[in-house]
Amino acid sequence: MNYREAGVDIERKAGALKAAASKIKETYTPEVLRGLGAFGGMLEVAWLKAMAEPVLVASTDGVGTKTLLAAQTGRYGGLGFDIVNHSVNDLLVQGARPLFFMDYIASARLEAEVLAQILASLAEACKAVGIPLLGGETAEMPGVYQEGGLDLVGTIVGVVDKAQVVDGSRVQPGDVLLALPSSGLHTNGYSLARKVFAGWNLEEPRPELGGQSLAEALLEPHRCYLNEVEILQREGLEIRAMAHITGGGVFENLPRVLPEGLGAEIRRGSFPIPPIFELIQRAGQVPEQEMYRVFNMGLGYILVLSPDVASKARQRLPQSYPVGYIMEGSGIRVV
Amino acid sequence: MNYREAGVDIERKAGALKAAASKIKETYTPEVLRGLGAFGGMLEVAWLKAMAEPVLVASTDGVGTKTLLAAQTGRYGGLGFDIVNHSVNDLLVQGARPLFFMDYIASARLEAEVLAQILASLAEACKAVGIPLLGGETAEMPGVYQEGGLDLVGTIVGVVDKAQVVDGSRVQPGDVLLALPSSGLHTNGYSLARKVFAGWNLEEPRPELGGQSLAEALLEPHRCYLNEVEILQREGLEIRAMAHITGGGVFENLPRVLPEGLGAEIRRGSFPIPPIFELIQRAGQVPEQEMYRVFNMGLGYILVLSPDVASKARQRLPQSYPVGYIMEGSGIRVV
Repeated sequence: MNYREAGVDIERKAGALKAAASKIKETYTPEVLRGLGAFGGMLEVAWLKAMAEPVLVASTDGVGTKTLLAAQTGRYGGLGFDIVNHSVNDLLVQGARPLFFMDYIASARLEAEVLAQILASLAEACKAVGIPLLGGETAEMPGVYQEGGLDLVGTIVGVVDKAQVVDGSRVQPGDVLLALPSSGLHTNGYSLARKVFAGWNLEEPRPELGGQSLAEALLEPHRCYLNEVEILQREGLEIRAMAHITGGGVFENLPRVLPEGLGAEIRRGSFPIPPIFELIQRAGQVPEQEMYRVFNMGLGYILVLSPDVASKARQRLPQSYPVGYIMEGSGIRVV
Repeated sequence: MNYREAGVDIERKAGALKAAASKIKETYTPEVLRGLGAFGGMLEVAWLKAMAEPVLVASTDGVGTKTLLAAQTGRYGGLGFDIVNHSVNDLLVQGARPLFFMDYIASARLEAEVLAQILASLAEACKAVGIPLLGGETAEMPGVYQEGGLDLVGTIVGVVDKAQVVDGSRVQPGDVLLALPSSGLHTNGYSLARKVFAGWNLEEPRPELGGQSLAEALLEPHRCYLNEVEILQREGLEIRAMAHITGGGVFENLPRVLPEGLGAEIRRGSFPIPPIFELIQRAGQVPEQEMYRVFNMGLGYILVLSPDVASKARQRLPQSYPVGYIMEGSGIRVV
C-alpha cells in the first residue's frame, strides 16, 4: 500500500494510524501474499481454477459529496462502509462475489485523525464482507482539492463462473420486482440534500426522523445486499436480474439490466419510504418524479424473479417487498 | 462504465466524447464480456487455469499534481499514458503482467473536451500495453475540487504464477543495478517543480532543454517498461528484483525490494540525468540529496541482476545503464 508515496507512511505513524494499519491487516485472508508497503497487493487465487470459466468483474466508484457532510459534522466513520458496500452491490448485480478491495483517499491536507477514521471504517467494512483491503493510495493535493474537501474512491474486483452470470436475458413480462430496503440515501443525491438542508441544524434530534438528527439520517451507511443474494443462491432460486439503485434512481438503474422491449411498473405504497426522503421532498418542495430520479426512495436493491420464485424468496427474506412487475414496453413508471 | 452515474453519459454525448468511447471499445480484447454501461466490467480469464498457482496483483495510484500543469497549459493528452504506464510498472516489479485497467476522473466541473482528451489518452495507453480499459467513473464535485483542479486515479489488476513472483529474496551483494532511463519527472515531484518554475514562461523553447519548452519537458508522459522486462523474461534471464522509481526516489523505492541487511551504491555519472532535472536543481537551488529524494533523476526503473546476467541484459537492452551495485548494509548511497 503506497501511502508512503504521498509522504504518509501509516506503518511509521503512531496512534490512530497505527491502529488503522492493524485493522487493515486483520482483513487479510490467508490468500493475501503481500499487502501494506508493496508496489502491488497480491492475492493467491488458485481455487479459481475449480471454476469452469472464471470471469473477473470490476467496478470503480466514489462516495461523491457525502464526504462534505462527513467533514461538516466530523463523522467520517461511515464512509468506508459506504464505498465498500456500494461496490459490493455493483458486483452482485452480475452474480459475482467480491475478491478484494482497493481504496484511494485524497484531500488538500489529510489530518491523521481523519485518515485513521476512514481507513478503519474501510477495513471494518471489508472484514464484514470477508474480503481483504489489498491496497490503496493516499494523496495530499492542496492545488486540486478545496480546504476540507475530500474524495474517497474504491475499486472492487470479484469473480463469477460464466454460466452463473446474471444478465437479465431470461426476464419476462409478469416477473416480480422484489425490493430490498435501503438504509437512506446510500451514496447518491447529496448535492440536492445539502442544498435543501443548507442552514438547518444537523445535530438536533428530529421527531419526524424518529428521533434521529439530520446528520445521523443523512450519514447512515450504504447497505450491503450480499447476504440476501447469497441466501437465494444457496436455495437454488433463480435470479433473473438485479439492479443496484444508485445515481439516477429506479428510472435509470433498472432499465440497465432489462432486455430490449421490457419495462416495469412500481406501485406506490408497496414499500416503506424512509422518513428522510419525505423530509427532503417536503422541505425542498421537490416533485415526486425528481425524487425518484435522484434518490433510491427506499428501494436499495431490486431483484427480478418469476412469480413462483418471488413468493419463495419473500419467505426467506422477511425484509423484502414486492413492489411491482415487469411489463411489455420500455421505461419505468411509478403508479 | 458508470460515467452515466455522474450525469455524464459518454455513450449519448456527441463529438469528442463519442470518439473517446469508441477508442475505449477498441481496447476491448475478445475476453471482455461487458464494458461501457455495465454495473461492472467483465473479463473472461479461463486461460488463467493453465497457471499452476495464479496470483492476482493490484495497484491503485493517481497522477498527482501533474494535472495542474496539464490544466495550466491545456495539454491533457499525456495524462492517460502517465497513469496507465505508472500502474503497469508497479505490477511489473513483482513479475506480474497486466490484465485490465480501471480509471477515475473527477473535478469541480468536467468540460466534455477535457474529459474526451483524457479518456482518449487512457484508451491509447491501454491499447499500447494490450489491456482493456474495463471500467471507470467520472464525477463532478464543485464543493470538493477547486475550479480547474482535476484528479486522475487508476487501478490496475494483473496476474503472475506464484513461482514467477519476483520478491528480491535472491538478491546478493555484488549484484548489478541496471537502470532503464526515465522520460522525465514521470508522475512525481510536481509540487516542487511547479514551485521552482512559478512565473516562468512554460511555452518558450529552451536551449538547455534541447529546444523543448518547460511545458513539453514537464508533461513528457511516464514511460512503460513492460517491453524491456518481457525481453529479459523471454530470454530466460533471471531478474532478482525490480524497483519502479516513483515518489521518494531511489532512496525510498529501491529498499522496498531488497532483503534485510542489503543496501546499494549508485555511481554518479554512470547514467544520463535528463536536462529538466539539472534545470530544476539550478533554478531552485535544490540540494542534490533532495533531488534524489523527490525525483527519479533519470533512473526510471531499476533491475537487480547477477553480474553475469547483467552483461547479457545490456546487450539485449541497449538503452540500459549499469549504475551501481548491491552492498552489505542498508540504505542507498549516491557516490
